[in-house]
Formats: sequence, C-alpha cells, structure tokens
Amino acid sequence: MTTSHNPSGEDSLIARYFKPLATDPGAFGLVDDAAILRSSGEDIVVTTDAVVEGVHYLADDPPGAIARKALRVNLSDLAAKGAVPAGFVLTLALRSKEDAWLRPFADALGEDARSFACPLLGGDTVSTPGPQMISITAFGRVPQGRMVGRTGARPGDRILVTGTIGDAVLGLDVLKGGAAAKALASNPRAREMLVSRYRVPQPRNALAQAVRDHATSAMDVSDGLAGDLTKLCAASGVSATIDVASVPLSAAAAGLVARNAVGVATLLAGGDDYEVLCTVPATHSDALLAAGRAVGLAVTAIGTIVEGSGRPRFLDGQGKELALKRLSYSHF
Amino acid sequence: MTTSHNPSGEDSLIARYFKPLATDPGAFGLVDDAAILRSSGEDIVVTTDAVVEGVHYLADDPPGAIARKALRVNLSDLAAKGAVPAGFVLTLALRSKEDAWLRPFADALGEDARSFACPLLGGDTVSTPGPQMISITAFGRVPQGRMVGRTGARPGDRILVTGTIGDAVLGLDVLKGGAAAKALASNPRAREMLVSRYRVPQPRNALAQAVRDHATSAMDVSDGLAGDLTKLCAASGVSATIDVASVPLSAAAAGLVARNAVGVATLLAGGDDYEVLCTVPATHSDALLAAGRAVGLAVTAIGTIVEGSGRPRFLDGQGKELALKRLSYSHF
Repeated sequence: MTTSHNPSGEDSLIARYFKPLATDPGAFGLVDDAAILRSSGEDIVVTTDAVVEGVHYLADDPPGAIARKALRVNLSDLAAKGAVPAGFVLTLALRSKEDAWLRPFADALGEDARSFACPLLGGDTVSTPGPQMISITAFGRVPQGRMVGRTGARPGDRILVTGTIGDAVLGLDVLKGGAAAKALASNPRAREMLVSRYRVPQPRNALAQAVRDHATSAMDVSDGLAGDLTKLCAASGVSATIDVASVPLSAAAAGLVARNAVGVATLLAGGDDYEVLCTVPATHSDALLAAGRAVGLAVTAIGTIVEGSGRPRFLDGQGKELALKRLSYSHF
Repeated sequence: MTTSHNPSGEDSLIARYFKPLATDPGAFGLVDDAAILRSSGEDIVVTTDAVVEGVHYLADDPPGAIARKALRVNLSDLAAKGAVPAGFVLTLALRSKEDAWLRPFADALGEDARSFACPLLGGDTVSTPGPQMISITAFGRVPQGRMVGRTGARPGDRILVTGTIGDAVLGLDVLKGGAAAKALASNPRAREMLVSRYRVPQPRNALAQAVRDHATSAMDVSDGLAGDLTKLCAASGVSATIDVASVPLSAAAAGLVARNAVGVATLLAGGDDYEVLCTVPATHSDALLAAGRAVGLAVTAIGTIVEGSGRPRFLDGQGKELALKRLSYSHF
C-alpha cells in the first residue's frame, strides 16, 4: 500500500506498527481482511483471552509488559493443551495512537511472537472512549485427536504443577501497596520479582510435547490453583487431595507465609500464575518430572486424583483440611 | 459442571447463556480453555472484527441486533474470501451481566450461529468499567490455496458489487436525527429499512462459492465503497473506473439523492454496507450475475479495472469525475 493512495489512519497505524510482525505468508502482510492457517490434517487448537486496562493490567504498566501479557496468557493455554504455537490475531481497542505507547507495545509483541514462533496473522484496530483492551485469539497445532483436555483425569493420577504458585497475586498486592508491599519494604529485589511475575507470565510452551505425551488432563492456572483444579476435577468427574506443603512457592512467597504476612490460602486462590496444572498416571510421573528438568523447568507433584465429586481437599502437614473462603478470581 | 462445585460467576454465565450455542464437538461444551478446528487439508480462513458500543453500535441498540452485527461483520469477511463458515470464538467485555441484555443477545447470536452454520467454539468473558465491546474471530474453510485475496485484480476485469450501497450510513443518519431523518419524516418504512441496514448487516455467504469460482479479487465493503475499492486497487497494483450511475442504490437512498437531501458521495464513502465487492474477468461476469440470481441476490457491474496506480475514478453520467472529499470511515 503506497502513501499516494492516502491510506486511512487505521491502515497506516497497522502498516507502521504491526506489519513487521506479520512474518507468516498466511498473513498476506496484513493487506487482506483475512489470513490463512494451513493444515495438513493436524487439529488446530484455538484459544482466546482478553486483557482489559484496570482489570487485568494497570493503566501505568509498561506497554511492553502489557503486550507480552496479552500474548502470553494465550500461549499458556496452548502449552497446557500440548499444542505447538502457529500464530495469533489481535484486536486492539485504543483510546489514542500515541507512538510513545504503541512503539514499545508493538516491539515487545514482535519479540515475543518471534521467540515463541507465534506470528501475527491479522487483527482489528478500533477506537474506544473507555479502557484499552487487547483481545488475542491464538492458534496451535496438535496431531489429530491429541489435544490434552480437562476431562481425562482418573483416580490414582498424580497431580503436577510447573513453576511456583502465588507470586503473581503477591506482585499485584505489591503494586497496590498491600500487605506484601509492607512486609517487603526493605526487599526491593523480592518486590520486583513478584511484580514481574504479575506483569509478564512465563508460559510453559517448552513442556507442551511432554504434556501431550504423558498427561491425562491439563489446563493452565490462570484464575487460581484451587479454583482451576476444582474445574478440572468437575470436568473429569473426579476429586483430588492436595498436600499443601508440596505446593511449590518462591522463596519470597514462602518467606511471607512463614512470617504470617499472607496466608497460603491467598496464594492457592490467587490468579495470574500461568503455570501448567496436569494429571498423569502414576507410572508417567517420573517421565514428566524428567522432561521438566530437561528444559530447565521445575515440575512438582502436589497431590493425587481420587474418586468422588466433592471439592478437592487441601491438606496441611497434619492432614487437616485447609478452609478456603475463595477458590479463585471471578469477573462477576 | 455441577452447581455443587460452586462455579464462579463467569463460568455460570457462560454455561447459562453460551453453552447452548457451542454445538460443535470441537467446542467441548465450553468446559475447556481451548477448542479444536478439525481440518482434512483445507485452508482455514481466519478473520477478526470487533464492535464497540458508541463506535460501531449505539448503546440503546437492541441487544439482539448488536449480537447479529458482531457475528455478521465477520461472516461478511468469510463470504468475500469465498470461504464456508466453520465456527467462531467470542470475547465479550461486559459492564454488567443483566439477564435483560444477555438473554436476547445470546438468543440472537445462537439463531445466527445456526442459520449461518457457524457454531460458537469458545470465548472469554471479561468485565470492563467502560463501553461494552464484542470481538469475534471467525473461521471458514476453502480448498487449499483457494482463498480469494485482494491482489488478483487485473486490467479489463469487471467490478461487481452485491446488494445496495449507502443504506447503512443513511440508517445511522436517521438514528442521529440528521438530514436523512428530516427528509424521511413522513416515511417511517424507509426510515426503518435504513436503520435495519445499519444495525443488522446481511452477509452474502450464499454467494461465497461463486466468488471463489469466478473472482480474481474480492473484499467486503465495510468502510465505504470508495475507500475499500481504493485499498483493493492498491493491493492489486491497478486502478479502476466506476460508473456512478450504475452503483446500486435502494429506492429510499435513490429518492434522497434525487431530492438532493444527501449527495451520492456520502453513500460511496459511507461505511457498514457489508456487501461483496469483487473483480471478475469479463468472460466470467455473466456467470457471477447468474449465480446471484440463483440465490436471489442482486449483483451489479459498476465499472472496470484499468492500468495505473492512481485512485479509482468515479464518473457521472457525463463522464465527469466526482470529487470525493472523504473515501471511507477511519477510526483514527
């Protein structure tokens, strides 16, 4: 598209900021209304997640962090489904088109698109008088019939989780000046680590193939471990027992719990972890743990799937059930 | 998911309103984070378009009309690409979850999903303190390599358009009490027709196969015929001559032009038509016109693709070029 054709502001915004991200031939350089996803018989896994200013991120979060979060919450879904990223489309609802915001946003989005091999395929840019919003639909590929769902957990399966749980909710608390901020007043490195866990998820795509090879069910932990495990169990028609002492915590989170600055229940119900939660037959547990080590990612066994339809039980070191007032974050 | 698991408000909202729309097995009844699009080697066509309250629709538009518009603007893209609808994912940014709004919204969305054979595959529901927004990513299928793009128009091709042009921009003018509202003060039926053309597009999916069989390039007219044709020509590296007298107008629009209540330039640059604009080799022109007749849809030849890189020229009955101040709607 040449400037002699007097492209509209929207077209020139797309050409300027987003065309460089559209490296896949199926994106047609973003000059078409539509993109093409080629398939040679694999299943295309589709996931969609939106982030809203003031709800999922804070208005003064760095634009690059917002871009990464918007894409990574979707990459995290693909990882948990055992899918290899194939591309994404972007809907951007903007109040303004300031270069100071769009340039770092697009640059960071492009960096993540490259490093996760998930190119931009298309999108829509609209103006809004309200909070900004970024909605991404991402695509992945799995061999036919091999997407890892939520319904396959069976009694006896081990429950495994990647990384650490509860850092993001503490990071948000730090940003809001809550209890974690006060307790960590003299520890800027811990504050920074927790904030970065809130702002920029680390999706576990490196583990996707191992999840596909070993897991009977999986999902990413986005609304809180307790609530998400409850959903997985409900979908599979089973229940679970979790050994709370086994739930992996970062040193910062463990320190806050030890000092009673926050309760472990807050971490179990806190959102934005973006870790993979999965169930594997006991005989596959070691293989998945080894796959984690091979890619430098901690994978931890935290409990067992049991028969029943009750809520998962979270047991402390004495076998006493933890009372969880809230299971997860809900928008409504 | 049983209520004994105390689903979050978001989950129960999805189960209540949107699960009945998820009729495709790849949607897993909306209990998973992801959906599956099966493919047996066809290309998947992906398109995404968002509508924002106060920008693309008015806050007091009927919820059912908003739902239909949100889906149909995407179906219209699929039609112009020659694709058969396969499904869609929905991001819904809501201020509240009032049944009085969600019930008619979901019912109308479900009706359209059924009648266009485009089931809901998944989605995300988020809360927003700002204007509501609906972002839809829709999928279609075409045989491999057969999506109709924007780059194939060649000099000598005939330019064809479906339906009528300019009704939607007049409908919006009626809703805003502008010139069209005044000129049609005594003609409620014409006002109603124009408003309905603004609120509820009629995507031309019935013509998709014929577009694939005959068109060298195609797009849907969403931002205004003049601007959209300009984009198509730029993408194809050609120019065009349009016979303005041939551009199909509804009786209501033609009457307003004849009485000088609105200028034809307004209709050519007005958005929201959601008609198919395509180019066909002269030898295929009759076949596409016949295909239109076969499905009861007016298709009209309005001009010719010519060599060059200048803006398309819009000529009146005397061969004089119409000066267009504005080519189309732009968000920025």
